[in-house]
Amino acid sequence: MLDQALAYAQAHRPEALEALKQFIRIPSISTLPEHKIDMQQAAGWLVEKMTAIGLEHATAYPTAGHPVVYADWLHAGPAAPTVLVYGHYDVQPVDPLEEWQTPPFEPTLQGDKLYARGASDDKGQLYVHLASVEAYLKTAGRLPVNLKFMIEGEEESGSVNLEQFVQEHGDLLQTDLVLISDTHILDPQTPVIITGVRGLAYMEISLRGSERDLHSGIYGGVVENPLNAMVRLLASLHDEQGRVNIPGFYDDVLPLTPAERAAINVGPVTDESLKAETGVPALWTGETGYTSAERRGARPTLDVHGIKGGFTGVGAKTVIPAVATAKVSMRLVPNQDPYKITQLFINHVERLAPPTMVAKAQTIHLGDGAVVTIDSPAIEAAAVAYEQVFGQRPLYLREGGSIPVVALFSKKFKVPVVLMGFGLPDDALHAPNERFHLPNFYRGIETAIRYYDLVAYQNGAQAAA
Amino acid sequence: MLDQALAYAQAHRPEALEALKQFIRIPSISTLPEHKIDMQQAAGWLVEKMTAIGLEHATAYPTAGHPVVYADWLHAGPAAPTVLVYGHYDVQPVDPLEEWQTPPFEPTLQGDKLYARGASDDKGQLYVHLASVEAYLKTAGRLPVNLKFMIEGEEESGSVNLEQFVQEHGDLLQTDLVLISDTHILDPQTPVIITGVRGLAYMEISLRGSERDLHSGIYGGVVENPLNAMVRLLASLHDEQGRVNIPGFYDDVLPLTPAERAAINVGPVTDESLKAETGVPALWTGETGYTSAERRGARPTLDVHGIKGGFTGVGAKTVIPAVATAKVSMRLVPNQDPYKITQLFINHVERLAPPTMVAKAQTIHLGDGAVVTIDSPAIEAAAVAYEQVFGQRPLYLREGGSIPVVALFSKKFKVPVVLMGFGLPDDALHAPNERFHLPNFYRGIETAIRYYDLVAYQNGAQAAA
Repeated sequence: MLDQALAYAQAHRPEALEALKQFIRIPSISTLPEHKIDMQQAAGWLVEKMTAIGLEHATAYPTAGHPVVYADWLHAGPAAPTVLVYGHYDVQPVDPLEEWQTPPFEPTLQGDKLYARGASDDKGQLYVHLASVEAYLKTAGRLPVNLKFMIEGEEESGSVNLEQFVQEHGDLLQTDLVLISDTHILDPQTPVIITGVRGLAYMEISLRGSERDLHSGIYGGVVENPLNAMVRLLASLHDEQGRVNIPGFYDDVLPLTPAERAAINVGPVTDESLKAETGVPALWTGETGYTSAERRGARPTLDVHGIKGGFTGVGAKTVIPAVATAKVSMRLVPNQDPYKITQLFINHVERLAPPTMVAKAQTIHLGDGAVVTIDSPAIEAAAVAYEQVFGQRPLYLREGGSIPVVALFSKKFKVPVVLMGFGLPDDALHAPNERFHLPNFYRGIETAIRYYDLVAYQNGAQAAA
Repeated sequence: MLDQALAYAQAHRPEALEALKQFIRIPSISTLPEHKIDMQQAAGWLVEKMTAIGLEHATAYPTAGHPVVYADWLHAGPAAPTVLVYGHYDVQPVDPLEEWQTPPFEPTLQGDKLYARGASDDKGQLYVHLASVEAYLKTAGRLPVNLKFMIEGEEESGSVNLEQFVQEHGDLLQTDLVLISDTHILDPQTPVIITGVRGLAYMEISLRGSERDLHSGIYGGVVENPLNAMVRLLASLHDEQGRVNIPGFYDDVLPLTPAERAAINVGPVTDESLKAETGVPALWTGETGYTSAERRGARPTLDVHGIKGGFTGVGAKTVIPAVATAKVSMRLVPNQDPYKITQLFINHVERLAPPTMVAKAQTIHLGDGAVVTIDSPAIEAAAVAYEQVFGQRPLYLREGGSIPVVALFSKKFKVPVVLMGFGLPDDALHAPNERFHLPNFYRGIETAIRYYDLVAYQNGAQAAA
């Protein structure tokens, strides 16, 4: 059964690639209202594809936002474990469009890379699992495990409706473990299992001064410019040691133990490799007292993502804008409560507002951080599957990004969450020219096929079948 | 001759308004390259209109940028003075477009205001002079003065090619005084002659970190965010006393004498009226030690006009942009050399750049400030003309804005520059919903008609004619 599935997957690589390209062509940007219909189309495409490969009960469940797609195959018997595969069909916006070398929604092969928005995050990594399931169902007609898919459409906009969906469909989603491919490995040869993700609090600040945009020649000096005030406010959110300068921000951050620090710093990512990967003239020394690896994955950060107001076109306009807005996110570590942090942020920002304008801060989206315990059989099966395909055991690393569902599943179902990714650090996630290294696509399919087999075998279900 | 002209102007108000509307409908935004053809159309429209009203030699002179339109009528005789009317046919960009209540290039009458980009700045105020000339030429067939028009198309983008044009056409432009209507008066009843304008240095800063946009979850904490660095850099350009914090910036600023301060502070503009006019919750206290009137017109300022980079759409995108850029302008007072100031700025900004990124600062445009001496007959004639029409003598005020041509003409031709404006403080220059108070349009035409007569009379030319 395993060998047949592996052979099928190998023989049908062109078809898998073609299907992925179809999926990518749907511009499913969850955060932009004008793409609502594309979101529905992408959900519909998944339902159809899942049904075609032999999954059952494929359904796009409506939510207050974009639909959640569910499907299952539950005939492996009660002795076999149930695996819930999570992924997301939504993608990030594509701006700045002018920096794309190929159209973002026309997947383009260059060498062994497929360029497109969503190629890696997460359509490519999600399709790994559809292709592996297809390989079993089209050969043996069955899977070694009971399998459920839950594919959401709001990961890139904070998974705001997912918690409610999970609450309302607890029985449907009941599982023994959650499997997610939405992270990256170290390099094409070195797999990585992620053992922790950061939380996220994404905020928007607005400062409103005058009733209308004003001429800086006439009012400069007497009307405070909201952009002048905004840069002062944003700059004050870091202190001179690179720490986040919001009272109470670090109160719940657990100090790193010597053992944790040792584990974090043992990874093969060096300052030199980070510098080469990103092309910066120098790395940031960041928060004083911590190494790059600690700052990336185990310490909270604050970033400004965009500032709006005034004039940014070609040439010159001497305007004092009526309003300036800024988007700011904070990456949070486990034990920092995003709700508490956003309240600290809002209070602080509104207190900092000068009397010359009205400040407002609001939450755009939130996600909890989580730490994954690595001593479960579900994780060990992933390590073995990786080793069988990549020829070496995975590294265990913390990841700086945020996957809200990890905390959600860890807390609600108290089951292991396995973060078995197939992306690469230079996939350009969320950036122009996103790409997926196709050899990893194919290795990913093989790894997933082996993983289902290994998990079933651990459970003794394989023998029973 | 005067009475006939006044009667003609009064009878032909609807035609003057109609012509102004035609002029406004051409979206002549000089700073945006995609409007190049509109700029040519606006210049052509002027040439045709000037010819139709009886001016001679109407020509659009090409420059390295947008054309300068020239026309004249030189038959008043050698005893009559020559007046050169300066204006500009270019307008500011219109964004944010969504805040306009009527289409910016479809002039719309509401009450006694005409809403459109350029309605006041400067198409409406410029058309005042075309209508006043037409009133003479269509009645007496002659003007009491020799008249030249020089109408540029780059005032809103720094008049970058005007100095060369003036150098190359010194004979053509020879004049006894320059008359400009491109400023505002205090209120519909209270005329104002502007006695000083500030200079301008408009800069752009860029900070480039990584080669491509990065995911803040993966690189936050080790790659310094150019937006984080930009807000820190921009915030540092003011100190805690509201002073511009660039070494050497104030070196050439002349201290205000007690007499100057007294003159500046005697104006009827109060903090309360400024607050009501702009709708701000409170005025800025700005540079410590100076009054609002001093900070507005007689002290230099620095304003951030826009910041680009990252994501400013609806929703959330967790990006560390590769590049952040910012537009910043400084209003300069007489004796501050814009070239020197830009060099100070560039050196300072490039020195402030963190080692994690490459900083570049460049000049977008420049203009000298100027002070006008008020004891010339040319200014007195304007005061009398205003008084005859508005029923009161004008105030003499300094203006915070920048009209580069004032310094240019003061220096090159050593002739009086008369800033006789007809705008109002709430015309929303450079902002959405720009408008022109039409009673002032008609009073402006009458004031200009009287002005030509008064200037000729002062010179004895009236009697000779």
